[in-house]
Amino acid sequence: MRVLYIVVIIVALAVSLTTDAEETSSLHLMPWPASVKTTASSQPLLIQTSFTVGLHNASDPTLRRAVEIFLTDLRRHTGSLPLDFNISNDSGDAQLKVKSEHPSKPVQELGEDESYTLEVTSTGGELSAPTTLGVMRGLQTFLQMVEITPQGFAVPSVVIQDKPRFPWRGLMIDSGRHFMPVEVIKRNLDGMAAVKMNVFHWHLSENQGFRVESKRFPKLQEMGSDGLFYTQEQVRDVIAYAHERGIRVIPEFDMPGHSTAWFVGYPDLASAPGPYTIERKWGVFDPAMDPTRESTYKFLDEFIGEMAKLFPDQFFHIGGDEVNGKQWEANPKIQQFMRAHSLKNNADLQAYFNTRVQKIVAKHGKTMEGWDEILRPDLPKTIVIQSWRGQKSLADAARQGYRGLLSSGYYLDLMGTAASHYAVDPFADGAANLSDEEKQKILGGEACMWAEYVSPENIDSRIWPRAAAIAERLWSPQDVTDVNSMYARMDHTSQWLDAYGLTHNTNYVPMLERMTGGSDAAALRTLADIVEPVKGYAREQLAASEPTSLTPLNRVIDAARPESATARQFGELVNNFLAGQIKPGMELQIRSTLISWRDNELQLSASAQSSSIVQEVMPLSHDLSALGTAGLQAVDYLDRGQKAPDGWKAEQLAVAQRAIQPRAQLLLMVAGPVQKLIQASAGEKPTDLVLPKNASD
Amino acid sequence: MRVLYIVVIIVALAVSLTTDAEETSSLHLMPWPASVKTTASSQPLLIQTSFTVGLHNASDPTLRRAVEIFLTDLRRHTGSLPLDFNISNDSGDAQLKVKSEHPSKPVQELGEDESYTLEVTSTGGELSAPTTLGVMRGLQTFLQMVEITPQGFAVPSVVIQDKPRFPWRGLMIDSGRHFMPVEVIKRNLDGMAAVKMNVFHWHLSENQGFRVESKRFPKLQEMGSDGLFYTQEQVRDVIAYAHERGIRVIPEFDMPGHSTAWFVGYPDLASAPGPYTIERKWGVFDPAMDPTRESTYKFLDEFIGEMAKLFPDQFFHIGGDEVNGKQWEANPKIQQFMRAHSLKNNADLQAYFNTRVQKIVAKHGKTMEGWDEILRPDLPKTIVIQSWRGQKSLADAARQGYRGLLSSGYYLDLMGTAASHYAVDPFADGAANLSDEEKQKILGGEACMWAEYVSPENIDSRIWPRAAAIAERLWSPQDVTDVNSMYARMDHTSQWLDAYGLTHNTNYVPMLERMTGGSDAAALRTLADIVEPVKGYAREQLAASEPTSLTPLNRVIDAARPESATARQFGELVNNFLAGQIKPGMELQIRSTLISWRDNELQLSASAQSSSIVQEVMPLSHDLSALGTAGLQAVDYLDRGQKAPDGWKAEQLAVAQRAIQPRAQLLLMVAGPVQKLIQASAGEKPTDLVLPKNASD
Repeated sequence: MRVLYIVVIIVALAVSLTTDAEETSSLHLMPWPASVKTTASSQPLLIQTSFTVGLHNASDPTLRRAVEIFLTDLRRHTGSLPLDFNISNDSGDAQLKVKSEHPSKPVQELGEDESYTLEVTSTGGELSAPTTLGVMRGLQTFLQMVEITPQGFAVPSVVIQDKPRFPWRGLMIDSGRHFMPVEVIKRNLDGMAAVKMNVFHWHLSENQGFRVESKRFPKLQEMGSDGLFYTQEQVRDVIAYAHERGIRVIPEFDMPGHSTAWFVGYPDLASAPGPYTIERKWGVFDPAMDPTRESTYKFLDEFIGEMAKLFPDQFFHIGGDEVNGKQWEANPKIQQFMRAHSLKNNADLQAYFNTRVQKIVAKHGKTMEGWDEILRPDLPKTIVIQSWRGQKSLADAARQGYRGLLSSGYYLDLMGTAASHYAVDPFADGAANLSDEEKQKILGGEACMWAEYVSPENIDSRIWPRAAAIAERLWSPQDVTDVNSMYARMDHTSQWLDAYGLTHNTNYVPMLERMTGGSDAAALRTLADIVEPVKGYAREQLAASEPTSLTPLNRVIDAARPESATARQFGELVNNFLAGQIKPGMELQIRSTLISWRDNELQLSASAQSSSIVQEVMPLSHDLSALGTAGLQAVDYLDRGQKAPDGWKAEQLAVAQRAIQPRAQLLLMVAGPVQKLIQASAGEKPTDLVLPKNASD
Repeated sequence: MRVLYIVVIIVALAVSLTTDAEETSSLHLMPWPASVKTTASSQPLLIQTSFTVGLHNASDPTLRRAVEIFLTDLRRHTGSLPLDFNISNDSGDAQLKVKSEHPSKPVQELGEDESYTLEVTSTGGELSAPTTLGVMRGLQTFLQMVEITPQGFAVPSVVIQDKPRFPWRGLMIDSGRHFMPVEVIKRNLDGMAAVKMNVFHWHLSENQGFRVESKRFPKLQEMGSDGLFYTQEQVRDVIAYAHERGIRVIPEFDMPGHSTAWFVGYPDLASAPGPYTIERKWGVFDPAMDPTRESTYKFLDEFIGEMAKLFPDQFFHIGGDEVNGKQWEANPKIQQFMRAHSLKNNADLQAYFNTRVQKIVAKHGKTMEGWDEILRPDLPKTIVIQSWRGQKSLADAARQGYRGLLSSGYYLDLMGTAASHYAVDPFADGAANLSDEEKQKILGGEACMWAEYVSPENIDSRIWPRAAAIAERLWSPQDVTDVNSMYARMDHTSQWLDAYGLTHNTNYVPMLERMTGGSDAAALRTLADIVEPVKGYAREQLAASEPTSLTPLNRVIDAARPESATARQFGELVNNFLAGQIKPGMELQIRSTLISWRDNELQLSASAQSSSIVQEVMPLSHDLSALGTAGLQAVDYLDRGQKAPDGWKAEQLAVAQRAIQPRAQLLLMVAGPVQKLIQASAGEKPTDLVLPKNASD
């Protein structure tokens, strides 16, 4: 699922209409609710040790469990102890009264009502919802408002009416390329629940690994996983954990391509003779299932039957992407079959395969889902298309009557900015002119975390906090588009998520310390704070040697954040400074930052003496030092009201141009703002620095 | 187990004889081995993706498992992926050859051989040991030497011969007062294994909670635990986890006192009629088992029988401490029993109880262990005394032929310095004059983590890294006493332990961020970095209201480290500066630190506006600002070679004196070094600042 990827350092986004967000800027809610009204003058509701939640419908065990989880989360967010906070079956004196009209479904369904109403005053809160699912969403909203105040932890007085814009708000995690232990999955489910995502799409098989225990075909995991797979008991545990948090779990078993790992144990499934070994490299490979043999469908019938029982969700994802067809073309029997059945090309053959598989999936009571490629008019309208190609592809499907969801623009592994994901709307572009009925076919979207370059140690930092921006896009009203507000709330949400044991923040410093050999990592951090990994698929293309699934992910690129908050904030500071919106302390802050960059080189050199990993980033450190010097000189010119000389300007712009070149597969993200200072000091209009093509391929 | 606690800010310790540590200062080994020889000139052994461990005795499953755990740890410490690194049954080409003469015992025993020899050259390593237990210790040593180098991760050339000084090197965790989930226990077992501790003493019952599932007496956990207990399956899981890491697990069920939680479900065990409720307060309480009724012993026989099967270790800890005897004195039947049996006082009655219990423990095949109080000449010499009273008490026991271990001086909850624990030697003071045979009776010691003021969130920060200093005291030769070397290696070990998921470092910033409402916590951190909780039992005595097990542990005192590394390092800097050992940059560092303290007040005030928790520490912030100003002025005087005037001196010394007073149960640990600057600037000899009595009661 390659997608085109174009980026400029500062994504220029039209800041849209004023939303409620600006009136209620003290709230850190994310996603922003459909309607929020606060009363600034009234007192908050204090959260004390005696805090009690009263249940209106105490007989619904899911509701009770949801409140138990909420109380555990409340303890995490207030540092309180397990014994305090209570549940009461009587809502009489409770500080938070919870009412669910109906239990949610035993197996969560697409489109279940998730709306809720939450009213908080200084004397108590009332949360009511048509279903327990809505209660879960409302509890997260309540939780996000809990904050320390001069009186202790408290929730402000507020009236919120809320419901999601799209019924399908997903996160896909690829456990195929790199295995992710259950604890990684669980903490990310906590994160999803916190931002009201409701679909966990679990990519469970790949060329590099088959990750679920099959009792019917045990050689799948025994020979295809390096011992790294989920037992069925673990799968059930994850599904139960997700269900308690209002999250559906949809398994993906990619076929007929991306399936080398299946063939290690079952080579007869493939279109060319074995033996096969687990793939260690990344990319698209030749092995594919043989769509012409009945034994293939017999196998899949039994396998899908087993998995359909294990995964209770209505939907079953069969992948279906990126078949290069080479094995098919090289196999005379397959070619003969195609001629005999008037299948003109590989796409026709795959469509034949999909039609057969769809019938098997339907036989086992499930609705088939797949990537763009599966869309062919001969498949029934019940299937769901997940689009990595974009809104036009999605709209085309909708016009043909197919339901779909958007993943194009939501690929977290491509290291784009939160703003770039936030700007991607399922109804934009190709989908803007759909009829209302056609728009109903667009169910929502999914953030995708492909796993070539993530380990259990750093995957959280690739998912969070950026996935929260996608979650907001899919939950909040379409006109909630203020990027500054989004970033302010996302920065807060990032810290908030620490409480769930997500490691996107906490693993950062230990990883850097490991690179410096346990000595002071402050200088390395100064550099790491303002670099970002190269974008799109450039990492692979800039690699010194071909990366594999055994390549250690322990370099600066693996710790550096996909989007540097420090660089973004410095960029904003420079923009405001140059726009004349100068506040006290602003110039001092710019100067002291530039000085710290200029002077960082010396300290980092000491670490580089003893670390191959630090050595690799010294060219970036050198350029950062030069940027610091250039920026300071530029500010000097601006201070003196003196136009910088042309010769100096040309030299310094060359420094900025050099600085933005990728080295160690990293980008110095402050080259852009420093270029603006240089331009402004020379009397030029500041322009955005465009990433070189090889940095964002 | 109260102990006397006296502290001065800088514990003055005689720096002892040169050890190997100084010659091999680039190694961060902790505990320091018995013998280390390095060859500075030779090349290190590179740890590459193909790294393989060859087993000499591949048939020992414990050995194989130990190496698997080692490889997992190696991956954690190099950021490598689960698939790389291998085990080979043939030691031929392996980079690390491992040889164990004999398997270790199926149930680990006291005194099993833990020695090992490790030799590493650029071409490979050889680890050999008499037992698999020794291999485990040697693997940790190998692991601690893995570090980033200019060539990548590597281990230096070295020859190490090592064995422990004491056979019993324990950590006690109190799961009674605050329950600690299994994950907390497991990560601490990882930490213990890393520093070669070999006994996990699990304090499982208290007035505040009974924490183990009993199938025979289920009301123990059902009514006595608030639902917070370990199932027997979890206990077995923890024991297996510990066993794989060479750690024995000894349960403690405290009796006849500290047992209110037992009586909630079984009031007939008590010496006064019920009903009882779980105790919420801290301290010593009246309820005690009735030692005069046969039904008590019948109960204990069945209970101990059940637990003796669950916990395989040879030793069984019955507590036996702090019985106040009030219930006994108030019960006429008990008084009558005492007269009838010529038991003159409560101590006699408890001795009677202990004798009976000892027979039960022995009947179930176990050796009884208990706190100081149980020592009475009528008990057999097999029992083991754990001393919270000190070396004299231990020596007295040894002279009487009893085995013992030291915990006095190793109470981590009292917030002492690592140096103060490090200075406590089991053979010091009262034990120094024992005969060799008597010395054999002293088995070692245990660090104790009592849990009045710890939660799962902050317990790691109370145990680590200070427990590593105790681990070294108990493992390394007696003459390894260089405090500077210890601190340098302990600081490194603290970071090293992050890899095991211990949260002593990683939870610090998130806790502070919660206190500031998720806004920038940098200013709060500046303050928190240089404060320490009050010492000894002062926290309780300085509390505004009586603390209970429901009191939230979410204040600055709960995040602040027991020993501030920043304050310690600043103190060293000032000491060196004033001693004339001035290096380039040193004065700048002192000045910039003082400036940051002086200027922190303004920033922190902003947080205080919106946080009750920050408000509480503002008096400390105010004094820190004053200390910064005073220190800067003192350095100015020193720079000018001008003696500070008497009036100024008196004023500033008063500032330092005020600053060291406890506020918010915290101590500003930099008051001492600043006092020295003031004294020196006035031409006085710098003196250590003594903590006020109420700060260390």
